Amino acid sequence: MTTTSKTEWWTELVSIPGYERFAGITLKVTRKLYEEKTPYQHIEIYETPYYGRVLVFDGCVMLTDRDNYLYHEMLVHPALFTQDSPKRISIIGGGDCGAMKETLKHPTVEQVTQIEIDERVTRIAEEFFPALCISNTDPRAHFEFADGIAWMEGARPESLDVILVDSTDPVGPAAGLFQKPFYESCLKVLRSGGIIAQQSESPFYHAHLIQEIRHGLLKAGFSSVQTLFFPQPTYPSGQWSVTLARKNQTLDAFRRQDVLHKSFRTHYYNAQIHEASKAIPEFLSAFMEQTS
Amino acid sequence: MTTTSKTEWWTELVSIPGYERFAGITLKVTRKLYEEKTPYQHIEIYETPYYGRVLVFDGCVMLTDRDNYLYHEMLVHPALFTQDSPKRISIIGGGDCGAMKETLKHPTVEQVTQIEIDERVTRIAEEFFPALCISNTDPRAHFEFADGIAWMEGARPESLDVILVDSTDPVGPAAGLFQKPFYESCLKVLRSGGIIAQQSESPFYHAHLIQEIRHGLLKAGFSSVQTLFFPQPTYPSGQWSVTLARKNQTLDAFRRQDVLHKSFRTHYYNAQIHEASKAIPEFLSAFMEQTS
Repeated sequence: MTTTSKTEWWTELVSIPGYERFAGITLKVTRKLYEEKTPYQHIEIYETPYYGRVLVFDGCVMLTDRDNYLYHEMLVHPALFTQDSPKRISIIGGGDCGAMKETLKHPTVEQVTQIEIDERVTRIAEEFFPALCISNTDPRAHFEFADGIAWMEGARPESLDVILVDSTDPVGPAAGLFQKPFYESCLKVLRSGGIIAQQSESPFYHAHLIQEIRHGLLKAGFSSVQTLFFPQPTYPSGQWSVTLARKNQTLDAFRRQDVLHKSFRTHYYNAQIHEASKAIPEFLSAFMEQTS
Repeated sequence: MTTTSKTEWWTELVSIPGYERFAGITLKVTRKLYEEKTPYQHIEIYETPYYGRVLVFDGCVMLTDRDNYLYHEMLVHPALFTQDSPKRISIIGGGDCGAMKETLKHPTVEQVTQIEIDERVTRIAEEFFPALCISNTDPRAHFEFADGIAWMEGARPESLDVILVDSTDPVGPAAGLFQKPFYESCLKVLRSGGIIAQQSESPFYHAHLIQEIRHGLLKAGFSSVQTLFFPQPTYPSGQWSVTLARKNQTLDAFRRQDVLHKSFRTHYYNAQIHEASKAIPEFLSAFMEQTS
């Protein structure tokens, strides 16, 4: 690891079907802090003046110190504040532990199991992103380093209240997390009324994927789906989404009074934002009606 | 003008107080279509595979073919659907004519006057962005090429229903459009119940500016202010805002039934999105309460 004083630039180039590497997010970098090729991915960590430390997998920003709160809060809190009394949660992926940290803020939660395929991600997060790992020693936190798809197949039926799918993009090892067989396992493992929340990419760049996810969840047997939208400056297009689905129940209402009187602080999420994140842009509305 | 087949990259580097050129938006460019230095700005137009034509002023993206609908719809429709029966409108800036096009979609509108300081912007838009200029021959459309601040000082009191401030960033010739004397002129020229809508930059990168704008509008004598948030992939941070203020009235309600039955199509804006755009992220809420 070397320190350099000269300014360098790091760029994530974005590709979508039909448009290869058509745009990018560029960050000023003061130095590369770490690099490792694991059996699953190429991990890099950069230090930047504004965004703090940036975690990169296979050339894509996974998170930054400064703006990861958006994604982590919106993956976790809408699902947990929609569930009546979330006690037993599993996080599939989520090796950086940011989703674990947000989940453990909920006082009803009794047990959270994080199933990350690549143990190196968690070890690296503990070293370079300690703020995301502050709750890892909570007695309610459990860590397994295993394949999430196989784990879910083998899990006990009706044993979970919420499943959070905090995955990388739907290529490589994460591809199966966006497919019907995995959703069928999740449905089986959730209790009645249970909720799955999955990161579902950009509404501008991946609208077809959002529709596929919604279709897949409904075909697997979930009773309702709901996609939430929120800003994320360091992800492609600056706008991201999470898709929720619920077993045997609708997703219309959330525990608004509990959000208004929550016992912890958030930086983006609140009751207004929860409600607002459900609004569907006009260009997606016809599209979404086909899967609702 | 030369055509080249080799791929080139164009990058807008972003600076905010304390962080000089810390991040950027990178676009693949197939060719530069046009370039001109006017007395007011350095104008460039690039052709890109995904975003179509991109209009750049002084190194900053002003609009692209593909995503300008977000900004133009959110500058125009929330203001016009909040006003009871908008008839007489002025657009300050707006030389690309996209705001004019959206404004003229409202059947109540009788007259729209666009006051752009740099006539070259409009001439260039007519040539390179014809889709934005399709309503320029509408008999209700009027064009003046003049300084918007002076124009507003001289305009007849109580003569306008809505003022749309479609300006560049608050530096150079546009700086005065973000200051109290201009707001005082606007207040005088609006009829009672009249609304001003001003583009107010990124909630992530320019939160202090948003607060200054809100303070400035209230100090100038407007009775209420409201900031709306929306995504804009090709603007810094991917998230942008418009701030509304109203003379002698609140901004709480908009004509929801008229939005639901509007006579024209939009690509982003709808009643759900209008309501949702008012939601204030938690990190801005304390901040916003000081100016409301």
